[in-house]
Amino acid sequence: MRLRHKPYAMEMIETYPQFVIADPEAYKGSWGKLFGNNNPIHIEVGTGRGRFIYEMAKAHPHINYIGIEKFSSVVVDALQKLIDEEVPNLKLINKDAKDLTVFFESEEIDRVYLNFSDPWPKARHEKRRLTYKSFLRNYEQVLVKDGEIHFKTDNQGLFEYSLMSLAEYGMLLHYISLDLHNSDFEGNIMTEYEEKFSSKGNRIYRVEARFRNEPVL
Amino acid sequence: MRLRHKPYAMEMIETYPQFVIADPEAYKGSWGKLFGNNNPIHIEVGTGRGRFIYEMAKAHPHINYIGIEKFSSVVVDALQKLIDEEVPNLKLINKDAKDLTVFFESEEIDRVYLNFSDPWPKARHEKRRLTYKSFLRNYEQVLVKDGEIHFKTDNQGLFEYSLMSLAEYGMLLHYISLDLHNSDFEGNIMTEYEEKFSSKGNRIYRVEARFRNEPVL
Repeated sequence: MRLRHKPYAMEMIETYPQFVIADPEAYKGSWGKLFGNNNPIHIEVGTGRGRFIYEMAKAHPHINYIGIEKFSSVVVDALQKLIDEEVPNLKLINKDAKDLTVFFESEEIDRVYLNFSDPWPKARHEKRRLTYKSFLRNYEQVLVKDGEIHFKTDNQGLFEYSLMSLAEYGMLLHYISLDLHNSDFEGNIMTEYEEKFSSKGNRIYRVEARFRNEPVL
Repeated sequence: MRLRHKPYAMEMIETYPQFVIADPEAYKGSWGKLFGNNNPIHIEVGTGRGRFIYEMAKAHPHINYIGIEKFSSVVVDALQKLIDEEVPNLKLINKDAKDLTVFFESEEIDRVYLNFSDPWPKARHEKRRLTYKSFLRNYEQVLVKDGEIHFKTDNQGLFEYSLMSLAEYGMLLHYISLDLHNSDFEGNIMTEYEEKFSSKGNRIYRVEARFRNEPVL
């Protein structure tokens, strides 16, 4: 993702604390109160410009969504959507997702979305990939039992790596598509990236995975 | 695979018992004696016309190979290769692979190859797929600890299914390629099918998997 410096980003974010939650750690264990209901909470790690989670929130009003994006110059585009048309079941967090367990209580989250995450192709950057085991451990901690990770990408190397990492962690892979846009999967909401890359003929890969509740051996 | 009726097949197979082992159960636990050495044994389940295992056997003289193929009309093509040019480290079995544990002792096999297996696309035929759990259980039984399954196919649906099945079984996926012919994998020996399908532009998928020695949870 190309990042453009936006000097106004921080000021804009601070102007709308009802949309971009400044102190997510304060809501740990009580996000339901913030949303004013006990609906399931789905988070997207690496929300980018926010089209996916914004469209999801509009399509599924009985699910609460939280988009986490560390780059302020990007999250402002997601924020702009909320300014233009408020969606009550969507909040944003402008922080690093490595602190997920600081923001959310154990089993507070029902689903984690990872969309077109940074592939970090160099081996020495493996630990930065959002499907690396330390991130999986955090997802496992905040997810309810049987909660799922839904991951899609057009990056072949990242998808190959992620399948290996999920399997090594012992996760169950419930659904795999090696060509999402030519599959029978319904209700796909495209991210900004997805539309751009798939229009170039790139395949989109997708997997749904959940953590194992019973031992393997 | 199109099967042509070959009325001479059975007679031809019986004429060369040194190449197509008629009573594999008699060698259970003593295949090394048949080969005359203690080299590792790699088997291919569903050998078809045999190009893959024949070329592998020629390329790796210090590994013993056994190709298992239930259709006599197909295995005769593999046999013909051995008649034309004998390879001492290759034997064939013209039997159904469901009886793998009848042919081989526990931990007698070092690697299992599955190449372009029948996809059995209908859900009601899942149990016939060579990556279904009952087959995995048999591979696990005959393989040494750390022995691997090497699987390749051009069938997207079978590959998606197989990744899910291997992960559900708790296997570790050591290597995944979602486009083998455009990857950095070296030493690939193509099957008859692989050459035909990849020349049409089909992607070849490949995974190396091994059974877990330690519990996940």
